[in-house]
Amino acid sequence: MERSADIPGGKDNAVATTGRHRVVVVGAGFGGLETVHRLAGVPVSITLIDRRNHHLFQPLLYQVATASLATSEIAWPIRHLLSGRREVTTLLASVTGVDVAVRRVLLEDGDALDYDTLVLATGVRHAYFGHDEWEPFAPGLKTLEDATTIRRRLLLAFERAERESDPQRRAALLTFVIVGGGPTGVELAGTIAELARVTLPPDFRNIDTRAARVVLIEAGPRVLAGFAEDLSDYAHRSLERIGVEVVLGRAVSECSADGVIYGGEVLKSNTILWAAGVRASPAAEWLGVPLDRAGRVIVEPDLTVPGRPEVFAIGDTVTIAAPDGQPVPGIAPAAKQQGRYVADVIKTRLRGETSPAPFHYKHAGSLAQIGKRLAVIDFGRIKLRGALAWWIWGIAHIYFLIGVRNRLSVAISWLWNYLRDQRSSRLITQGRSAPEYPKQP
Amino acid sequence: MERSADIPGGKDNAVATTGRHRVVVVGAGFGGLETVHRLAGVPVSITLIDRRNHHLFQPLLYQVATASLATSEIAWPIRHLLSGRREVTTLLASVTGVDVAVRRVLLEDGDALDYDTLVLATGVRHAYFGHDEWEPFAPGLKTLEDATTIRRRLLLAFERAERESDPQRRAALLTFVIVGGGPTGVELAGTIAELARVTLPPDFRNIDTRAARVVLIEAGPRVLAGFAEDLSDYAHRSLERIGVEVVLGRAVSECSADGVIYGGEVLKSNTILWAAGVRASPAAEWLGVPLDRAGRVIVEPDLTVPGRPEVFAIGDTVTIAAPDGQPVPGIAPAAKQQGRYVADVIKTRLRGETSPAPFHYKHAGSLAQIGKRLAVIDFGRIKLRGALAWWIWGIAHIYFLIGVRNRLSVAISWLWNYLRDQRSSRLITQGRSAPEYPKQP
Repeated sequence: MERSADIPGGKDNAVATTGRHRVVVVGAGFGGLETVHRLAGVPVSITLIDRRNHHLFQPLLYQVATASLATSEIAWPIRHLLSGRREVTTLLASVTGVDVAVRRVLLEDGDALDYDTLVLATGVRHAYFGHDEWEPFAPGLKTLEDATTIRRRLLLAFERAERESDPQRRAALLTFVIVGGGPTGVELAGTIAELARVTLPPDFRNIDTRAARVVLIEAGPRVLAGFAEDLSDYAHRSLERIGVEVVLGRAVSECSADGVIYGGEVLKSNTILWAAGVRASPAAEWLGVPLDRAGRVIVEPDLTVPGRPEVFAIGDTVTIAAPDGQPVPGIAPAAKQQGRYVADVIKTRLRGETSPAPFHYKHAGSLAQIGKRLAVIDFGRIKLRGALAWWIWGIAHIYFLIGVRNRLSVAISWLWNYLRDQRSSRLITQGRSAPEYPKQP
Repeated sequence: MERSADIPGGKDNAVATTGRHRVVVVGAGFGGLETVHRLAGVPVSITLIDRRNHHLFQPLLYQVATASLATSEIAWPIRHLLSGRREVTTLLASVTGVDVAVRRVLLEDGDALDYDTLVLATGVRHAYFGHDEWEPFAPGLKTLEDATTIRRRLLLAFERAERESDPQRRAALLTFVIVGGGPTGVELAGTIAELARVTLPPDFRNIDTRAARVVLIEAGPRVLAGFAEDLSDYAHRSLERIGVEVVLGRAVSECSADGVIYGGEVLKSNTILWAAGVRASPAAEWLGVPLDRAGRVIVEPDLTVPGRPEVFAIGDTVTIAAPDGQPVPGIAPAAKQQGRYVADVIKTRLRGETSPAPFHYKHAGSLAQIGKRLAVIDFGRIKLRGALAWWIWGIAHIYFLIGVRNRLSVAISWLWNYLRDQRSSRLITQGRSAPEYPKQP
């Protein structure tokens, strides 16, 4: 059942009926939101669709997972971010497909939405290299719920260890395995080690949380493969100094409720976190266009989908090579640059001019936090490490947050963390009402 | 299977083996926590058991439910609050019963815990007057998860209304029913009305959120029955002024997915919130002692359980009359006074002295917020209303929060709310990982 006339952006929509060019943007991450921002003042009608009501600052999601920040400190209601833009309609909805022949986006509930220009910025989920059965044992980190799930598992492991009398079971409860040595894996491992060694010890009576093992397993030859080699080395040594065991060159071949197997070795653990692989959203499948091994759309140099100049795809959901032949990394600045580029192409076309030059990615730098006063920054020519890098990392992240309120709030949380070694959100929540008291027998 | 020797507080426990008097406190709400705080410096070994890892500032829970505050702003990890008290062991566990004959608390997982003195401070849950089947349609508000569930339902109702073209269905989505006109009901109704009338209007394109109906249904003759009558009248008029429809003297006879029936009248609504009744935790059933209609333990004047001088019960889970014959209200100050009294009795007994005078409840006052610059305070002789009462209400609540960090954080959230009419936590979260992208067909 198609009811395109019934819904915003459809024929009944006040703005759409003015005959304006209709832009539909799917996904309100860094890329999609940037496209919408950059189209301000352009005479188009925009519909921004997302499955969630909030834009998420993913670079700090690991801090929610490790109890350092509250969910609301890194998330904003999308429609509020765009409340001043009367030509933008925000839609909380799931997209199930695109009918490119009639230029229509299909929604889960049977609704549909016509477009003149479509921008797909639908991102990625974590992926398990064909082992989806590992997910219950090794949650990944992409949404706020992922983060509160991981936070619950981490904190519950310590709680259960406190009550466990069997030494082997206790050891498994106090063993934390992080699979994947990219920035997320490194940041998770470092923060969990500090949680166990600095934050938690005074609060427990039966266990010494400093005895917890934090094991980071990376299949490749070094951690932070996207950084210069000496920064990888520094990160590796820093992790070991704060208590993380780093395993390189060995892939995980099994995840279960008991732990992991890597390179033939069995490691008993009750808490495995997945930071190893991602798979693109099914945008390529919606469009029926070529996709790469990770499910990403292989786009043209102007970020359009092959054969569909009115359809753009940007951000983590696409693959495109930078001028030096390196793939454009799946990070926020890349998605934002692409969002800005697409807005420019749309503006150029509306003016009846020819398209601008192909998209050109400019890599500003890579940042990763390892621990307190420990970070690495790779600006290409300039490489920083240690305390200075850590301060720059913190200031940069506060700068990139949206709005004074969240900047202030995150700054205060970090200040408390810095001065008192306390985490502001050590909550075990279940996301649903607690079970009722047992009924009277 | 009993493994009391295996767990903290059991025979293996380092502190317990010193032969100290063992106090077990069940419940880390206002009452239980106060008991533990007031036993500081007393040569006892204390075990504090709670099903949750956090102490919750329930008086502000409605602000989490209405997106004004973040969960972590009103919750603290219990074991961190007591980290400096080496003689206190915190246990995350569910109690399933008490074996009073052998003085032993039974835990869900088969463990057990011996006590010399037991303090039950297990609180209440919302209750449906024998209509438990209403719960899925009319969630109540007692836990953080209750609050995020209500927040999700509230925000989703507006989101769905924005996409709904059928006028009747849209009206039902924009009708919010609050059952119960006590402080929680009044505070929820007032805050939801302000959300719809002040915060949300600029963010929506297809609906006018100011058209939302907020209906407060109270079976009794007035709202805020615990306050002086002129303050009830003031609250009633204030609610109406900010857009709440107040229905008095009519009980709800049906809650369903379609709405409510009250006094024979049908009101279509997709969002019903329950603030009408509570039922005590099953402490009375654990003990096999007399209980009142709401399941509360009827305690002796010294807050001990009849026939069991070593077992105390305090807070919402008990019923006791104040000197004027009025029942002691189920509010935080009452629970704290009882917690302090019980600590005093324990101290007196340990000194070998006779028990102090019976518990005497001192009512300091009642406070309720209705809306921005609207509150009522009933100090008995002094009655306040309006803006002054609202400022006092705000300052008092910030004062009673724990720790500088949370006070600062709540103050900033409220400041933003006050100055910008914005809510800091407008997040729709599901408490579990988002559904995966649909698989490739």
